[in-house]
Amino acid sequence: MADGGGTPLRVGMVGYAFMGLAHSQAWRTVNRVFDLPFRVEMVAVAGRDARAVTAMAERHGWAGATTDWRELVARDDIDLIDVCTPGDTHAEISIAALASGKHVLCEKPLANTVAEAEEMVRVADQARAAGVRSMCGFNYRRVPAVAHLRNLIAGGRLGHIRHVRAAYLQDWIVDPEFPLVWRLRKEIAGSGALGDIGAHIVDMAQFVTGQRLTGVSALTETFVHERPLPEGGGRGQVTVDDAALFLGRLSGGAVATFEATRFAAGRRNALRMEVFGSAGSAAFDMERMNELEVYDVGVPVTGQGFTRVLVTERDHPYMAAWWPPGHIIGYEHSFTHEVRDLIEAIATGTDPEPSFRDALGVQRVLDAVERSAASSSTWTPVA
Amino acid sequence: MADGGGTPLRVGMVGYAFMGLAHSQAWRTVNRVFDLPFRVEMVAVAGRDARAVTAMAERHGWAGATTDWRELVARDDIDLIDVCTPGDTHAEISIAALASGKHVLCEKPLANTVAEAEEMVRVADQARAAGVRSMCGFNYRRVPAVAHLRNLIAGGRLGHIRHVRAAYLQDWIVDPEFPLVWRLRKEIAGSGALGDIGAHIVDMAQFVTGQRLTGVSALTETFVHERPLPEGGGRGQVTVDDAALFLGRLSGGAVATFEATRFAAGRRNALRMEVFGSAGSAAFDMERMNELEVYDVGVPVTGQGFTRVLVTERDHPYMAAWWPPGHIIGYEHSFTHEVRDLIEAIATGTDPEPSFRDALGVQRVLDAVERSAASSSTWTPVA
Amino acid sequence: MADGGGTPLRVGMVGYAFMGLAHSQAWRTVNRVFDLPFRVEMVAVAGRDARAVTAMAERHGWAGATTDWRELVARDDIDLIDVCTPGDTHAEISIAALASGKHVLCEKPLANTVAEAEEMVRVADQARAAGVRSMCGFNYRRVPAVAHLRNLIAGGRLGHIRHVRAAYLQDWIVDPEFPLVWRLRKEIAGSGALGDIGAHIVDMAQFVTGQRLTGVSALTETFVHERPLPEGGGRGQVTVDDAALFLGRLSGGAVATFEATRFAAGRRNALRMEVFGSAGSAAFDMERMNELEVYDVGVPVTGQGFTRVLVTERDHPYMAAWWPPGHIIGYEHSFTHEVRDLIEAIATGTDPEPSFRDALGVQRVLDAVERSAASSSTWTPVA
Amino acid sequence: MADGGGTPLRVGMVGYAFMGLAHSQAWRTVNRVFDLPFRVEMVAVAGRDARAVTAMAERHGWAGATTDWRELVARDDIDLIDVCTPGDTHAEISIAALASGKHVLCEKPLANTVAEAEEMVRVADQARAAGVRSMCGFNYRRVPAVAHLRNLIAGGRLGHIRHVRAAYLQDWIVDPEFPLVWRLRKEIAGSGALGDIGAHIVDMAQFVTGQRLTGVSALTETFVHERPLPEGGGRGQVTVDDAALFLGRLSGGAVATFEATRFAAGRRNALRMEVFGSAGSAAFDMERMNELEVYDVGVPVTGQGFTRVLVTERDHPYMAAWWPPGHIIGYEHSFTHEVRDLIEAIATGTDPEPSFRDALGVQRVLDAVERSAASSSTWTPVA
Repeated sequence: MADGGGTPLRVGMVGYAFMGLAHSQAWRTVNRVFDLPFRVEMVAVAGRDARAVTAMAERHGWAGATTDWRELVARDDIDLIDVCTPGDTHAEISIAALASGKHVLCEKPLANTVAEAEEMVRVADQARAAGVRSMCGFNYRRVPAVAHLRNLIAGGRLGHIRHVRAAYLQDWIVDPEFPLVWRLRKEIAGSGALGDIGAHIVDMAQFVTGQRLTGVSALTETFVHERPLPEGGGRGQVTVDDAALFLGRLSGGAVATFEATRFAAGRRNALRMEVFGSAGSAAFDMERMNELEVYDVGVPVTGQGFTRVLVTERDHPYMAAWWPPGHIIGYEHSFTHEVRDLIEAIATGTDPEPSFRDALGVQRVLDAVERSAASSSTWTPVA
Repeated sequence: MADGGGTPLRVGMVGYAFMGLAHSQAWRTVNRVFDLPFRVEMVAVAGRDARAVTAMAERHGWAGATTDWRELVARDDIDLIDVCTPGDTHAEISIAALASGKHVLCEKPLANTVAEAEEMVRVADQARAAGVRSMCGFNYRRVPAVAHLRNLIAGGRLGHIRHVRAAYLQDWIVDPEFPLVWRLRKEIAGSGALGDIGAHIVDMAQFVTGQRLTGVSALTETFVHERPLPEGGGRGQVTVDDAALFLGRLSGGAVATFEATRFAAGRRNALRMEVFGSAGSAAFDMERMNELEVYDVGVPVTGQGFTRVLVTERDHPYMAAWWPPGHIIGYEHSFTHEVRDLIEAIATGTDPEPSFRDALGVQRVLDAVERSAASSSTWTPVA
Repeated sequence: MADGGGTPLRVGMVGYAFMGLAHSQAWRTVNRVFDLPFRVEMVAVAGRDARAVTAMAERHGWAGATTDWRELVARDDIDLIDVCTPGDTHAEISIAALASGKHVLCEKPLANTVAEAEEMVRVADQARAAGVRSMCGFNYRRVPAVAHLRNLIAGGRLGHIRHVRAAYLQDWIVDPEFPLVWRLRKEIAGSGALGDIGAHIVDMAQFVTGQRLTGVSALTETFVHERPLPEGGGRGQVTVDDAALFLGRLSGGAVATFEATRFAAGRRNALRMEVFGSAGSAAFDMERMNELEVYDVGVPVTGQGFTRVLVTERDHPYMAAWWPPGHIIGYEHSFTHEVRDLIEAIATGTDPEPSFRDALGVQRVLDAVERSAASSSTWTPVA
Repeated sequence: MADGGGTPLRVGMVGYAFMGLAHSQAWRTVNRVFDLPFRVEMVAVAGRDARAVTAMAERHGWAGATTDWRELVARDDIDLIDVCTPGDTHAEISIAALASGKHVLCEKPLANTVAEAEEMVRVADQARAAGVRSMCGFNYRRVPAVAHLRNLIAGGRLGHIRHVRAAYLQDWIVDPEFPLVWRLRKEIAGSGALGDIGAHIVDMAQFVTGQRLTGVSALTETFVHERPLPEGGGRGQVTVDDAALFLGRLSGGAVATFEATRFAAGRRNALRMEVFGSAGSAAFDMERMNELEVYDVGVPVTGQGFTRVLVTERDHPYMAAWWPPGHIIGYEHSFTHEVRDLIEAIATGTDPEPSFRDALGVQRVLDAVERSAASSSTWTPVA
């Protein structure tokens, strides 16, 4: 009886590391908690190491495994390709999948360069005409507190937005002896903190405000220049930023600060966003992702203050699917929500968000950040 | 390839409401994230409404569904019965299952009366001799922060425990028009806040300190005496406590306060525990279940304070199975951890905790609370 | 020009330790920040050690010093006696002062026994007939957040009060080598944590709710029975409680828990109070005394939560006298507010609160607590 | 006996608004709580409105009042001039006072222009040769938690500093109908949020790290361009920034973000600073000024986290003068600490900090910020 009923949505996934695990649980879970028009079938996963990918498939419920992602793209019995690889292969895989008529969910950042991202958007636009959907995996949009914040702003509850203060603070490479993993190498990762976590706060700022970043002034820094090679045998050069700081202006008149770093000792995953408007304000911290602090200018002054809303009510975004109020959810749920929205979009023939175009917008901001940082922080309009 | 390999552990579940959903996700998830000697098979679920239980089975991955729990107990192809019904049926189902040689996981409270619980322990002891395991579902023991707290105390990090301050604050019946659901009727639920949530803090206090409650002084209160019948047609009598407050002494010399209420407006699921010892202290709040605040008397005075530990490190209990540090987990994960520990115990032929005897101990505390409350709060030793 | 103008209110103070210092700053400051009908004159301070009391007078702005408090009581040029001694001398000094027609501000607890307190009330009642005012120094009533909470409750904002959760947690004697100071000796202090800090939370609970405690069930505990004598030469017996825990019922139907302890390692001065009502709730912690967390049942559910009100607005109690919003005040300000209210009462011929009778009420609760603790925690009505 | 003994330090103050009140209480209080070589005499205060300044003098304990600050500078019986006026008169008054041999405490920002500040430094340097002392009033340095943070960093406890994240968030002009007070007019205030509150976080960042800002990239914004005139009769132009945001680099290799705004709805006085280093981190918020959160990289990983240190121990800076641990102090105490340090410096013949030169350094940063903001945010070295 399990897995029975409903039109199947047959998924193939490429990549099986951190994001592959997070997406696997999402595909496995989504039909259990949401009423959906499609029933997910986890058809196969592709990865470079045959033994590892096979073990991963068995463990996480993929019916098949392969070392060649092209095989997945070529299969007739797959409807959607989920791209969970590092950024240097996003473009190639996504484009091939779209070209073969498969919906694509691509992890963020969309690509390592603007040029790649533009090509992906071009192909996605063509595919859309044929009813093929594409989406970029900025999963934090699907944290209920973040979606709730967007709704508050869209509903005018914060008034005109004056300030966005965004920071994504991590600390996993504070130790200079931490090895030179792929995320510290430009040829694979594209950039460092900027593309990995800076991309998230750029997307979130644009998402919650409904505005675009129009220009930036930036600096980047690499604090530790050499690290031990993970495979042993000496040290190698860190070729990405450890931290990226930038100022920005939003299309609706707000000013903003952004800070992405892997050197904030003690901050494990502190994605924080404060938004100040003419009618209210809000503050979010991913380390307490079930909470949103909200301030309302209109309250009588003796009662004013930030209200700690536990975003676990049935009427909060996504939360009717889960537990009674006050019973919190975790990081992984954002991915379940993400594939839920993607499935809904495919079923209704609408474009899921964030689109590749939205993600290209983020990429262009990151590009402007790098150009500004390379040009004495000079103000750099976002293309 | 999915679900392949390993010795099967064939599970039948009775009950399909809140706890049934929480347990379903646990059984479905546990092999994905933990390396285990058994592979869970979700054989069938039993519930009173044929249509509803069938739908639930389909959705949540149970291969079969039935309206008769005795069928599950009678089947040869089931190894373990998971009892998720209200407390009035725990004893009958658990005893039948144990008697037919099936391992049992029974939700808390173990039973609605001490007598029932004692009988369950008797049967469980007999079954144990035949290698049949039994466990009571005090899932909060498996919150990593709680397990970590127990380890700190067991390792002597807090010294002699002086104080336990425990509260379980909820607010779902503050509105006097909230209907008279089964949890508000003594004949089904046994008691009100006391057995439902008070049981959790009693178990947690005993678990983290490794001590038993030796006596209590208590009062209970029902604030709203009549409520609308859920089926409509007038009002009925609330026959359980809305709140239970008690003082206690622990076998190791600590004193304790307990407060369980469903009338703490604004506290959705605030299970809080503070423990103060001669060498250190700790504080926990289930609404921020990934955090434990820890104080160390031995730190130089200018650096003393409560440290907010984000209990998400690989070296924290259970957390190596999940996400990178700082990526939090949710309420449901406690159940995944619970069945993981149960499976390990079955595999290694050891007794899982909390045993039915542990749960009987909790029941005896609840019983002493009710007797004290009925006797002018007079000090009442726990049997 | 300084100190010029206005009718003088001539103050004599007895005692010059912790409370003497706190009161000195209050008398010195009150005319600077509040518009008052009287101008305080700090006439003289009395203390047992001539050298010490003289030095204290010079430093803290008292015009004179004496070793004999009776001298102060006898002087014609003193209008008010401020009693800041340990509890064993409160009755004698206050009664003498009132008898000689002087207003009295007496530190809490009012006395060490109910009998003494009753006698003080009798004398105070007589004095009142002659326009002589008396007040007990429960200074925490004058913390703006606490006064604001009282106003919220008095205005019906929290509805019917269901629960009061009060705790006063300190840790200054966790170390068993901390010496046997006077506060640990029953003959001087009357009781331990109970009278010293338990008195505060009893008064605060009654003050904010406007209700009286009608009965209690209690236990007390002394964790460390012998301590080094402060003067050296061996150890002496601790004759007071280290901790007092009690349950209570309030005249308006609420139930309550109280916990006063000096063994809460890491909690320096954590006077906490939570109040849950049918329409709202509030939470206070003296370690963050400028904040009050307030919950409103009536807010739409997606916006519900505790609002952290920074109680520093001009429209908050007492705060118009101080700094712009957001600029916090400290512990000592509660005393300035206390003498401000006392002066206003004297000027307007009204009775300041808390009256000796209010304080006697607290004393009777403490007495009931001790009797319950001595009687197997049996429910003990407050006289 | 009051005010008796000790060498007098005779103070004259210019200005009697917000800062005048804060300084008055400091001068009045400092000898009460600290052992000092000088006894403060509050000789006279100068202000433009005769009636108002006289009333202020009477109330706050100044022996005399005048409408002409030059009178104070000319008097023989005044040793120190305390400049509490708006920034446009700081230079003239301070220079005149120094020239007449009087020590000067000048409120921040030191001046409205770098040129003025340079002249002030020049005169201060000359005066120093004659034993005349000068100090700028960056009072937040004297918040115990901030001084403690500096000590931690100076002692190497945080290692190499990587990041400073500073923000000073206020909200008093969010309402567009708030009037055009002097702080919104460039000719008086010099700048807006930048000089008023941005100056504080620049000074604090340099103070706690012991490093200088070497360059900045900035943007400024004015959200509301016209406001009602305070005197009525129409609207006038806001000629200062409402918000200033900038990135910076510190001389020791750290990168930094700064944000000063008066449009952060709900943040009354949120001066926040986070410092991340190779060995530890710390976080401060002026709204909870008695707390410092400290993180130590060296702690075993399962115990890592930010420790909330209540900075109220006798061994914390300044705190031995106040109350027992856990009893918090307020905003105004920072000024008492400031004049205490100034008096100590005068007595010991050392230079108090921050010197005028330190304050000029801040001014140069502000100047670089304005120049960068006017030049497309281009990186601008600090002179």
